[in-house]
Amino acid sequence: VSALARLSLNQATVPSWTVREAVDGCARAGVPWIGLWRDRVAAQGLVESARLVRDAGVRVSSLCRGGFFPAPSAAERQVRIDDNARALDEAAEIGTDVLVLVCGGLPEGSRDLAGARRMVEDGIAALVPHAAARGVRLAIEPLHPMFAADRSVVTTLTHANDIAERIASPSVGLVIDVYHVWWDPTVEAQIERAAPHTVGFHVNDWIVPLPDLLRGRGMMGDGCIELRRLREAVDRAGYAGPIEVEIFNDAIGALPGDDVVALLKERYVAEVLS
Amino acid sequence: VSALARLSLNQATVPSWTVREAVDGCARAGVPWIGLWRDRVAAQGLVESARLVRDAGVRVSSLCRGGFFPAPSAAERQVRIDDNARALDEAAEIGTDVLVLVCGGLPEGSRDLAGARRMVEDGIAALVPHAAARGVRLAIEPLHPMFAADRSVVTTLTHANDIAERIASPSVGLVIDVYHVWWDPTVEAQIERAAPHTVGFHVNDWIVPLPDLLRGRGMMGDGCIELRRLREAVDRAGYAGPIEVEIFNDAIGALPGDDVVALLKERYVAEVLS
Repeated sequence: VSALARLSLNQATVPSWTVREAVDGCARAGVPWIGLWRDRVAAQGLVESARLVRDAGVRVSSLCRGGFFPAPSAAERQVRIDDNARALDEAAEIGTDVLVLVCGGLPEGSRDLAGARRMVEDGIAALVPHAAARGVRLAIEPLHPMFAADRSVVTTLTHANDIAERIASPSVGLVIDVYHVWWDPTVEAQIERAAPHTVGFHVNDWIVPLPDLLRGRGMMGDGCIELRRLREAVDRAGYAGPIEVEIFNDAIGALPGDDVVALLKERYVAEVLS
Repeated sequence: VSALARLSLNQATVPSWTVREAVDGCARAGVPWIGLWRDRVAAQGLVESARLVRDAGVRVSSLCRGGFFPAPSAAERQVRIDDNARALDEAAEIGTDVLVLVCGGLPEGSRDLAGARRMVEDGIAALVPHAAARGVRLAIEPLHPMFAADRSVVTTLTHANDIAERIASPSVGLVIDVYHVWWDPTVEAQIERAAPHTVGFHVNDWIVPLPDLLRGRGMMGDGCIELRRLREAVDRAGYAGPIEVEIFNDAIGALPGDDVVALLKERYVAEVLS
């Protein structure tokens, strides 16, 4: 088995590439998996994108993203749920069984964290039948607590595990991204607890000083996350699926895509695998 | 009892004021408590600062700050411990029994979170006899997880409670700052658990978008933290001590001190108490 067998390029790492260019870039570099984004897929065309990945022999590790469930009114929450249903359709069409969920922050003007958390859980539960029908898992991605207000009221692996266990459906899983969970003193115990639910693992790094909350992630090895320790914990828990490199970083995003892919392959082997 | 009986101005909220000016400002505004910083106290003179607060009838809620225990070598760690011992002396001299600890991040070049966490706990434990002799509590302040790398490997109230319970000394307590813990789904349970150890409560707010990790805190009421809910949880746990307003914010810091104090008094009553 190639050392790169589990490697996936999340498309956000090379924002200059269209779906076609990203798929070609992966094929050229021997990266067997790709993580796609809905807006880029829409720009390329859904059917065309599906054909491109199929023809290139690249596999789709996940579609980003659904979620953003909390909203002030029941009608608006239903709009979000309907949009997530379409995202599940798109995931099935594009050939992946993982829809990544960024669950959403507080509704505009609200401070009710507990209420927003109930909206997230209710939204996910409402989508289970459609997810099952499509054969796609709803993958809760706990986000770093610094995003609690505006992007995800689900901020810990513990909370994501709680939700997955309460809903208790094979259509609900979770994605572990090192950037969001590395600081947690209970992270290894929670990775173990997540074993039945883990459907994705994302790598990147935390650099100091952080250039930007959202677009300041580092290339693996440039920061302080114990990547190998976390990868080993995920492996020990039995996860054997793709490992996505997802780096939102304006400086890296400005580099030629092939150079970024060459570097991340090298760092993946040196910093994540070994 | 005045509505302001528990209100404390943390000096960092009005960075333009010397210790003398801050003490005068509190006295003028009827703010009965003040939280002081070591560097400002040193600039004013320790003995002089102690005299100023005594003469003004203002009480010192805490001295900021000790901590920063992790370091690459045992010799350097001892330097940090010695500095904390001096901070305990200063706290006793200035008339407060609370030394706030910002525990410190990863040692330069290290990724060993567990190791850094041991250094923190060992450092605090080493200081217990001196803290007891001075009658000053070492108050662990868990910091927001976004500071895990560079400021505090203690990022949750759960972890601070774990340390306080393991050391199990009346000289070790913890400080709860809403900015650092508001996102935590277990925060109310951990506030209750912290009841025997809580020696301080800090208020401010989380604004979106966050202007800056370190210097982008909001005035109470301008953000999304459920301040009253957290204050009530701290009260229910039996904490009846001062409530410090600690806002690191360049825009607020640039306003005239008296205006800031007038505003925070109003917001304290409207957003924290009622």
